[in-house]
Amino acid sequence: MPSDEPSEPRVDASGARRPRLTPPIADVRRAVRGALAEGFADDTLVLVALSGGADSLALAAATAFEAPRAGLRAGAVIVDHGLQDASDEVAARAAGQARALGLDPVLVRRVVVDGEGGPEASARSARYAALDAAAAETGAAAVLLGHTLDDQAETVLLGLARGSGGGSLSGMAARTGRYLRPLLGIRRATTRQACLDAGLEPWDDPHNADASYARVRVRDHVLPVLEAELGPGIAEALARTAEQLREDEQAFDAQIEEFIEEVCEPAEAGIAISTGWLAANPAALRQRVIRHVVASEFGVSLSRVQTLEVARLVTDWHGQGPVDLPAGVRATRAGRHLVFSTTGSTEVLPHDH
Amino acid sequence: MPSDEPSEPRVDASGARRPRLTPPIADVRRAVRGALAEGFADDTLVLVALSGGADSLALAAATAFEAPRAGLRAGAVIVDHGLQDASDEVAARAAGQARALGLDPVLVRRVVVDGEGGPEASARSARYAALDAAAAETGAAAVLLGHTLDDQAETVLLGLARGSGGGSLSGMAARTGRYLRPLLGIRRATTRQACLDAGLEPWDDPHNADASYARVRVRDHVLPVLEAELGPGIAEALARTAEQLREDEQAFDAQIEEFIEEVCEPAEAGIAISTGWLAANPAALRQRVIRHVVASEFGVSLSRVQTLEVARLVTDWHGQGPVDLPAGVRATRAGRHLVFSTTGSTEVLPHDH
Repeated sequence: MPSDEPSEPRVDASGARRPRLTPPIADVRRAVRGALAEGFADDTLVLVALSGGADSLALAAATAFEAPRAGLRAGAVIVDHGLQDASDEVAARAAGQARALGLDPVLVRRVVVDGEGGPEASARSARYAALDAAAAETGAAAVLLGHTLDDQAETVLLGLARGSGGGSLSGMAARTGRYLRPLLGIRRATTRQACLDAGLEPWDDPHNADASYARVRVRDHVLPVLEAELGPGIAEALARTAEQLREDEQAFDAQIEEFIEEVCEPAEAGIAISTGWLAANPAALRQRVIRHVVASEFGVSLSRVQTLEVARLVTDWHGQGPVDLPAGVRATRAGRHLVFSTTGSTEVLPHDH
Repeated sequence: MPSDEPSEPRVDASGARRPRLTPPIADVRRAVRGALAEGFADDTLVLVALSGGADSLALAAATAFEAPRAGLRAGAVIVDHGLQDASDEVAARAAGQARALGLDPVLVRRVVVDGEGGPEASARSARYAALDAAAAETGAAAVLLGHTLDDQAETVLLGLARGSGGGSLSGMAARTGRYLRPLLGIRRATTRQACLDAGLEPWDDPHNADASYARVRVRDHVLPVLEAELGPGIAEALARTAEQLREDEQAFDAQIEEFIEEVCEPAEAGIAISTGWLAANPAALRQRVIRHVVASEFGVSLSRVQTLEVARLVTDWHGQGPVDLPAGVRATRAGRHLVFSTTGSTEVLPHDH
């Protein structure tokens, strides 16, 4: 128990039941305290995204405790996806728990999951839209999410199965815009114990036992086997890997940001990249610049195979023809430029030359 | 069957048995052909590192076929680790197979595995020492190793369990110095089938079934579970990930190579890095430079935790004391320099300022 945590009575002055400060509660609170120390103005509102599950319930309890001590206000938003029988009761119960923890305001938002892009992706985008709207409506500066170290490890393994490199292995960020994930260093078992220690009863989402979800199979079958065969600590190792690969991606992003302007120039019906620059730089940068330009100019995400084929117009140039890419995008080598266009034009007319 | 592969008679002009060109044989040959096209001088000797197992036996057969067509000579070296009963018979049998394939010279080298650093590491270093010596002795320009896509996938998973970031996930390189790995894109099952199709009987190393090796557990338990739960193609996805992360590491290496001279300067009893540079660059580069300097100057490999603690002397400087590192190395913030020394001296006296 850290010395800066006063031990608390189980019953406070008003007679309300107060949790004993156990190590799991202290761990979750410390994680939340770190996230809230990120420099919010006094009296700012932060919202906890609460499902009622152990992760977000422990997060809600810790935020209710820490926010006032950081000079902040804390509320909660519960998204009812309407995907299960009695999901409104689950939401109402979570809202009751949030109020009992002292969170205010407590919002419940029912969303419609249309299934577009698959059930998981569709539920996710409906959820984030509702969270965004709740933040806008309440003027909240941040929304706290309950993703744990276990979620991070699962995300890395799911990314590994896609095999699309560092980007897909770098997991979830501790902060993305207004979203904070204070619990990325906390094990799921710790959040559950923190709930039990605080006398809070978490809701068990039946989806978490539905093996038709890849994430559930990773949690229930893959991670336990990895742990058994490669030793304990595999979840922590995966999370550490995600953290480092995220730093790597950020470094590449910063580099591309820095020189993309000099490297590209507008061309007739598209954009041109200097082949000299592409040839002089390492494959990792060359390929990222190609992917970046095609994504930002045409909204097309290139696969590794497509990216490599385009790169060969520079690295293995022997007069080959243009490379046709999705959405009618075409990559053409034209002198000292690699030109991306949608018209099929292969002429380079850089505006500024 | 690719059109550039003539189909072969099962018995050639001299009456010797020749394998029918099946797809597995063609795949392995094509991979070897690609590796041998890397620009060796005419009549150069390349050696195949042969254990007698399916991977290296298929490699040996393909190299015996492709090397003369590329204007090269091909031999084999068999390392007898002396770790199993009758290992000398296994080695002699492999040598016989190599000679029957037409490889020349065929060397058998018995090594002593002293167990230092663990059985696997010790066997590996003895093996590479013998391969290096064989290459030097015969004047071979390259040694071909039989590592397959499956080996690469296993290496990635083993690296993942260590959790030490992109470097440990980037697997094995297709080329490291004189060592070539032509089969990194070929599945193990393909090499086995290529042997069967060619009438070659591979040796099954009993170590490959010994679950006391982490690699064997990954092969027999972890990969099959990943494949079952996350779908087929996981080994390929892992290999693709390794390839991309290797490119990323190479890009960072190239960048460090490029600016390390400007960033560092000798200091009394050590070396100093500009804190301005460290602060201005992304975490991925900052931490790599810190690790690089400590490794190259003092031969000490820093963990992530140690590296981050040193980095905080720049990113979170509030007058804290020096950071003590392994082997008596100490990192000290001194004005606009981060000084690494072994004497405990904190004075900065850059020679060139």
